[in-house]
Amino acid sequence: MSNVPAVEPMPPGVVSLEDHAAHAHARLDDNAWSYFSGGAADEITMRANRTAWDAITLSTRVLRNLVGGHTRVNFLGTTLAHPILLAPVAFQRMAHPDGEIATAFAAAMQGAGMVLSTQATTPLEDVARIVLNEPGRGPLWFQLYLQHDRGFTRELVRRAEEAGYEALVVTVDAPSSGARDRERRAGFQLPPGIAAVNLAGLPPAQAIELHPYQSRMFDALLTTAPTWADIEWLQGITRLPVLLKGIMHEDDARLAVDAGAGGIIVSNHGGRTLDTMPATAVVLPRIRDAVGAGVPVLVDGGIRRGTDVLKAIALGADAVLVGRPYLFGLANAGAMGVSHVIRLLRDELEIAMALCGCATLADANSDVLFK
Amino acid sequence: MSNVPAVEPMPPGVVSLEDHAAHAHARLDDNAWSYFSGGAADEITMRANRTAWDAITLSTRVLRNLVGGHTRVNFLGTTLAHPILLAPVAFQRMAHPDGEIATAFAAAMQGAGMVLSTQATTPLEDVARIVLNEPGRGPLWFQLYLQHDRGFTRELVRRAEEAGYEALVVTVDAPSSGARDRERRAGFQLPPGIAAVNLAGLPPAQAIELHPYQSRMFDALLTTAPTWADIEWLQGITRLPVLLKGIMHEDDARLAVDAGAGGIIVSNHGGRTLDTMPATAVVLPRIRDAVGAGVPVLVDGGIRRGTDVLKAIALGADAVLVGRPYLFGLANAGAMGVSHVIRLLRDELEIAMALCGCATLADANSDVLFK
Amino acid sequence: MSNVPAVEPMPPGVVSLEDHAAHAHARLDDNAWSYFSGGAADEITMRANRTAWDAITLSTRVLRNLVGGHTRVNFLGTTLAHPILLAPVAFQRMAHPDGEIATAFAAAMQGAGMVLSTQATTPLEDVARIVLNEPGRGPLWFQLYLQHDRGFTRELVRRAEEAGYEALVVTVDAPSSGARDRERRAGFQLPPGIAAVNLAGLPPAQAIELHPYQSRMFDALLTTAPTWADIEWLQGITRLPVLLKGIMHEDDARLAVDAGAGGIIVSNHGGRTLDTMPATAVVLPRIRDAVGAGVPVLVDGGIRRGTDVLKAIALGADAVLVGRPYLFGLANAGAMGVSHVIRLLRDELEIAMALCGCATLADANSDVLFK
Amino acid sequence: MSNVPAVEPMPPGVVSLEDHAAHAHARLDDNAWSYFSGGAADEITMRANRTAWDAITLSTRVLRNLVGGHTRVNFLGTTLAHPILLAPVAFQRMAHPDGEIATAFAAAMQGAGMVLSTQATTPLEDVARIVLNEPGRGPLWFQLYLQHDRGFTRELVRRAEEAGYEALVVTVDAPSSGARDRERRAGFQLPPGIAAVNLAGLPPAQAIELHPYQSRMFDALLTTAPTWADIEWLQGITRLPVLLKGIMHEDDARLAVDAGAGGIIVSNHGGRTLDTMPATAVVLPRIRDAVGAGVPVLVDGGIRRGTDVLKAIALGADAVLVGRPYLFGLANAGAMGVSHVIRLLRDELEIAMALCGCATLADANSDVLFK
Repeated sequence: MSNVPAVEPMPPGVVSLEDHAAHAHARLDDNAWSYFSGGAADEITMRANRTAWDAITLSTRVLRNLVGGHTRVNFLGTTLAHPILLAPVAFQRMAHPDGEIATAFAAAMQGAGMVLSTQATTPLEDVARIVLNEPGRGPLWFQLYLQHDRGFTRELVRRAEEAGYEALVVTVDAPSSGARDRERRAGFQLPPGIAAVNLAGLPPAQAIELHPYQSRMFDALLTTAPTWADIEWLQGITRLPVLLKGIMHEDDARLAVDAGAGGIIVSNHGGRTLDTMPATAVVLPRIRDAVGAGVPVLVDGGIRRGTDVLKAIALGADAVLVGRPYLFGLANAGAMGVSHVIRLLRDELEIAMALCGCATLADANSDVLFK
Repeated sequence: MSNVPAVEPMPPGVVSLEDHAAHAHARLDDNAWSYFSGGAADEITMRANRTAWDAITLSTRVLRNLVGGHTRVNFLGTTLAHPILLAPVAFQRMAHPDGEIATAFAAAMQGAGMVLSTQATTPLEDVARIVLNEPGRGPLWFQLYLQHDRGFTRELVRRAEEAGYEALVVTVDAPSSGARDRERRAGFQLPPGIAAVNLAGLPPAQAIELHPYQSRMFDALLTTAPTWADIEWLQGITRLPVLLKGIMHEDDARLAVDAGAGGIIVSNHGGRTLDTMPATAVVLPRIRDAVGAGVPVLVDGGIRRGTDVLKAIALGADAVLVGRPYLFGLANAGAMGVSHVIRLLRDELEIAMALCGCATLADANSDVLFK
Repeated sequence: MSNVPAVEPMPPGVVSLEDHAAHAHARLDDNAWSYFSGGAADEITMRANRTAWDAITLSTRVLRNLVGGHTRVNFLGTTLAHPILLAPVAFQRMAHPDGEIATAFAAAMQGAGMVLSTQATTPLEDVARIVLNEPGRGPLWFQLYLQHDRGFTRELVRRAEEAGYEALVVTVDAPSSGARDRERRAGFQLPPGIAAVNLAGLPPAQAIELHPYQSRMFDALLTTAPTWADIEWLQGITRLPVLLKGIMHEDDARLAVDAGAGGIIVSNHGGRTLDTMPATAVVLPRIRDAVGAGVPVLVDGGIRRGTDVLKAIALGADAVLVGRPYLFGLANAGAMGVSHVIRLLRDELEIAMALCGCATLADANSDVLFK
Repeated sequence: MSNVPAVEPMPPGVVSLEDHAAHAHARLDDNAWSYFSGGAADEITMRANRTAWDAITLSTRVLRNLVGGHTRVNFLGTTLAHPILLAPVAFQRMAHPDGEIATAFAAAMQGAGMVLSTQATTPLEDVARIVLNEPGRGPLWFQLYLQHDRGFTRELVRRAEEAGYEALVVTVDAPSSGARDRERRAGFQLPPGIAAVNLAGLPPAQAIELHPYQSRMFDALLTTAPTWADIEWLQGITRLPVLLKGIMHEDDARLAVDAGAGGIIVSNHGGRTLDTMPATAVVLPRIRDAVGAGVPVLVDGGIRRGTDVLKAIALGADAVLVGRPYLFGLANAGAMGVSHVIRLLRDELEIAMALCGCATLADANSDVLFK
């Protein structure tokens, strides 16, 4: 198999990211659908992410001269063609045989940043080669779950550096996996042949013998969960900037800055960890206020429209990440589907900017939010 | 074919504007329905227009002597029998073979103002003749999209003046067409024989060659979008008052007044351009506050009931425009259907005035709004 | 036919007022159902009446000694067994052959006040006889639409006085009938044999010739609508207290008191006149504030539960009226159905009082409302 | 029959408490389902209990060291393994042949407190034996309806003390049973062989002859309802702490403390007594504020998720009770089902604590509530 993904036709009538979701629902089996689409518990937070963006209204402006405007944004010392990145999503070959290869190809072609999941089903080096070959590409980052084995983690970081990844994104909001009821109801399991190949060789965690009435959570699982000390350790073994993904509290944002984080990703893990967390659109401006203007702040969760991107920028984000939508694009039409998803968002963002009278994203301050 | 539209029976059970919509949905094909009924993206703004009027409550008053009251309103130097105008809607022959002729006939018979769309499917002169022949008619205005070709635009204005149009309505909120997903999902296209006949002879826009990574929006499309300078230019070539349609920000309203606009139409294009804009009922009082009492202010968007008209007046509008409803009336029963829609609104407005204790629309100040 | 209504079994599973509505929906034909159940326009106010009561929460109290408590209330110089009256509803023989006779019988047996509609389908004298014969009966009032013919109106008042009616309820909120779309959609008309028998002999209104562009509403219909002067006139020709039904504004409440009204009924006509009026539960406390403690204030609109009755009292009402629910009881089981409806409300009211720690309705002040 | 309940398999796809409800709905007949699932009147309060917890959002914290944390809580002089108790529910053999025996077995095995209903279908001594035999058990309490016969009540209390119950829970919010429409619509009655066996031998209440127009509620039913004086009397005849269940007002909470109550249970009886009472989640913090830090406060009503438990603690509760969910677990799989319900709640609580950065429940103060 070549590394260039197949060209597939776009399904007719798919003109928005939600159309991609509906179409993918029909294509994926229940097992894969439950994994990619599900959230924690009653999925209140997952829905809240969406409704929060929808509830924000935009102020349009008319008759301004916007010729020569653009969507470029400066970020971590580089210039992005636009502020849309692909969030880390695990097990992408479960959605499409081309998996992360197709995603990487589409991201690079569309100038979108790519964040590869630790639990990717493709060797991280193969993904990097795809992205780095494309001149118009966006940034290439590696998402890291700190593993219980420090030696293995260190080796993983070394591989990512060597392969050309430009930042590490440490997911800090999932010391335990959430109660993902939809997955559990479907009896989700990884299909044969799908595996987190970059974790091959990870030694199994040491079994902990619990006394009666000890807690599996507090006395076993959490003994290997990362802490602020691990973030320090990580920064000591890498030259890459470290972004923390999953910050939802002002105090944690300040702690992240104090710990030297290269950036903050406001995220509730797409509503997949703890249900009834607030929507990211609600938390985002508080985080920006807490850390001030200099620190890179990104956001994900429920971004489905170009208007959502504009709102995120206006609320203080430098850029946004989308997760499920590109996964559904992948399921629908491989690389072409991912590409289509990014393109739709970009086009919608440009329309939103034009109608709100913003020539650049620097113009997209809080004045575009109708109050 | 004569210019007098056929008399058609009203469908039974159609007693409100929403009934007209439901009935038209069954009569129109998907292509036409998607065009006339659809809004931008998720149609949040389109629905918000409706729910905003519904959410405003009215204070009724009892036992007042209202004999001799009326619905007349003074506006741009003329007296209207009532404050209801027909908003510009394109391609009306797609709804009914009589198209704009039927609409003009009904408007004139019912004393409603008529605003002809640039994209009408009937020569503007034919429409004017219908209207100007009717003694009880309302005002006759021409809606203008400023075209990329100034010569052509100048000629269009000259034709409108010569034909007897009394004002120009420049739509300023659509430098690009919105992401109208419903249309795109339906694969909307103009049926054979339906065309914007008044734009015949418009030279094609000059093709712009884009460098890679230039933006189709900012570097091509917006290069011909109108700006405040074009409004000035337009006023220099016409003796007609120029109203600006699509103002949703106080600052733009003030700029419009400074630019000598003859009036302002608060409009979000019926929710067809940018989704998640605020409802016009919410923006209207701010615009009135911004420009003060002397400037004509109209509003459209979601007006479906006589109570909505009364609320609009109470919030500061001089008059209102309705769009989709008369189009659906047209689809249902040609001129009779349009006439019925206007009549329903007028009757409901009179009931609302009577029950709120308003003998005239001057009585319909903010006291009729329950707070 | 005897004047004693037949005993009919209660339908099984009907244990609440809303159950009566659902059951009646299945029994009544579309014509009658549209008349009795419908409201104005989109029925927003009709629904708001209900949701407003539901949205008010009650504070319960425990372990109080409530032995010997009761639901009695003093009102217009008499003591009612409980604060529930039957609102005037027209054309009751359309719901059940026994019509107003059955209603009167049930009201009297249950100690509920009875307000007979001007548009009753039974001679007012027959109804009075039924009620006055019952020792445990509630008050007997006559609802009056002031007719265009003063002589006829005077004679109607004389008949009511003579028959033993104890107050006049003048409906002031319907100078024109509202746009009752549900009725119009159903093509409602009175069935053969159903007529407003007490208006027999009313001379037809004088035809008014309208000039073109005159208004049917302002120049014809409203010329005979009652004004404050007519209320004065009415009080001059009767010894009965005059209550005004349909007051929804504090200023009108004050005007009513100044005009010597014997009481005020806060009502939006069950949402049947002007849509998007506020719910009566919202207006009631303002009216009580406006008129102070001495003036009798009643309320109707959406009362369906004993908790609603308690809330109304706590918001300042002396008593409540119910309309549609007893009409549905009538349709379901004649006098037994009406009786059942009243009994359900009384029982629920007693439960609500007991659980809120109220031995009497005087205890039901604003403290029972959870804030 | 042995007293050890049978081991039954858990139904597949049941991964949450609401899944248990849905599954039980399919297993129970209408009669039992109406009793266990129904609430008062329109069930507004029953639903509000749920939506109130859902509407509270949680603030997550990251990268804290939580090793060695636990869910233990000190309460009435003992240490609970976790803050989850089983609320008193009547007639459990109607859900499963093992009835209260299965419930007691599961509660004891899972370390959950057990509150046996006065209306249990199993002798209270049998239940106590099950619980007291299990070393890891939670507290064992007896719920008491004060009966009209004081001698019988005294004997019931003596039996409970002798059997080893450690507290009495007096339900004070149900002097009359509510209008439980769902039950009445289903024509609910106790099936043959199901009885409140611990009330066997209770002499019937003395019949009260009512004069016409006396009230069944105030002049009969309420004459035997408990008052504050009865609480005093009860404390005089028992050495057990007395908790009052059904307090929803700050003043009643203060009266309870003044009366020497050993604790307060904030409860609206699961929405089964008076509809439109506020949700317990709304009332809870007011009660805690009213009584201060020292008094044990528990809450029930709509607790369905571990996040709800954490929120209850953060709002001031020491522990929570669940009712319907374990009953549905019982219906689904006997003791295994009850056990599963408790286990799900505990696991979810631990996840919630971990993600909110709480090592212990003492950390779960109001800071975990997103404001």
